[in-house]
Amino acid sequence: MSIPEDHPRYRSLMTRERLAEMVGKGLVNPTGLISHGRGEAFDYLMGERTLGASLRAERAAAAYLIRARNPVVCVNGNAAALDAKRLIELARVIPAKLEVNIFHRTEERMEMLISYLESEGADEVLGRDPDSRIPGLSSDRALCTKEGIFDSDVILVPIEDGDRAEALVGMGKVVISIDLNPLSRTSRTATVSISDEMSRALDNITSFVRGMSRGDAVSEVEGFSNAENRRATVESICANLMREFEGGH
Amino acid sequence: MSIPEDHPRYRSLMTRERLAEMVGKGLVNPTGLISHGRGEAFDYLMGERTLGASLRAERAAAAYLIRARNPVVCVNGNAAALDAKRLIELARVIPAKLEVNIFHRTEERMEMLISYLESEGADEVLGRDPDSRIPGLSSDRALCTKEGIFDSDVILVPIEDGDRAEALVGMGKVVISIDLNPLSRTSRTATVSISDEMSRALDNITSFVRGMSRGDAVSEVEGFSNAENRRATVESICANLMREFEGGH
Repeated sequence: MSIPEDHPRYRSLMTRERLAEMVGKGLVNPTGLISHGRGEAFDYLMGERTLGASLRAERAAAAYLIRARNPVVCVNGNAAALDAKRLIELARVIPAKLEVNIFHRTEERMEMLISYLESEGADEVLGRDPDSRIPGLSSDRALCTKEGIFDSDVILVPIEDGDRAEALVGMGKVVISIDLNPLSRTSRTATVSISDEMSRALDNITSFVRGMSRGDAVSEVEGFSNAENRRATVESICANLMREFEGGH
Repeated sequence: MSIPEDHPRYRSLMTRERLAEMVGKGLVNPTGLISHGRGEAFDYLMGERTLGASLRAERAAAAYLIRARNPVVCVNGNAAALDAKRLIELARVIPAKLEVNIFHRTEERMEMLISYLESEGADEVLGRDPDSRIPGLSSDRALCTKEGIFDSDVILVPIEDGDRAEALVGMGKVVISIDLNPLSRTSRTATVSISDEMSRALDNITSFVRGMSRGDAVSEVEGFSNAENRRATVESICANLMREFEGGH
């Protein structure tokens, strides 16, 4: 598969090829490519940069993570394939536990993903031996560990399915989502809804965690309204769409 | 891979599984799943129904196809996998030639796609033995047949790459695109830009072709402004986005 280097979307197409390769290795489920495409579309509508509202949500996310008793960073196939290193770095800086949790669960894929994260530098990754279930989910997606997801008070879920996001909120947890679609069920449900490309979001949250005191975190959380922030996100996307249209024609 | 039937997006997830299977069979390139996901996102923003502006473009498309000297319906892997039957039916009703033209070209995939279309009821499918090139393209995407794409005056390109759309317009052809993203290079470049889900678009164009006289087609083409129509599409998407946001929260 040779993509000509003079193709105007060469880099984006190369990222696609890389993800497609991850499917070949079994790390990413084929339908995960469709999810990635959905995300790409929203990123495109945002001008492929972090919106002001998204940065605000990323700061609030950092504050919640700093204040947490048992914070957990959740990792699925797409997230690991897109940027394992930044997920590991954020977990290290908070510090938070890492737990692999996937929609299309097989023991083989779990082992592969956990080994992959370890090879990318993670010290300990939970998820190999689940001993708990998230209430209200009917499939293997419910499986988790007690010390990780089950007992967490604040949980970061990059690229999460709507069902699981709802079930986690139903358990009383603070759920921080990274989902480019601000209207998805996940974004509608989360306590803090970050609509941004995952790598950019992780970079920003990590920087905020590094620079924020516990005192700052308390007032940050108090001053944040997720509903208002989601509205600002949607309005920015509309403004971008019209601007793109005017610019392109 | 079992998706629980109580999952709220069960049907959409099943379509995804089907496309993923087509990847397994070699009909769809893995990166085609990402393109599908991008489309899904825009369809979602349109409320998963045909916008008024899209219907207007579909009528104009029918008019151009009726008036054409040598109309061609172009088919790639995604288009064939999504709805071969409707592509074949439209070509039959116009009547137009069918030609397979793919981005990731191998002889094996070409043969597989053409055989697949034949098994779905197509009489003749061009593309097996390309004898011409679309000027200005550096890869195998340039390959086409003289009697089909090369000599066509009006060409329907569902889910087309921006480079090829530009090159076809550069050859002086009337290019009709079906692309859910109204801001894509393909949509910006096409003579008639249809932003609609492919199956819905094909149904509508087929109905218009059936009901339109040659006289109607002339005035239809004269009265159509693609630039105005694209603006109406983008405005509808924005209105939908805000409505969705208000409805969901």
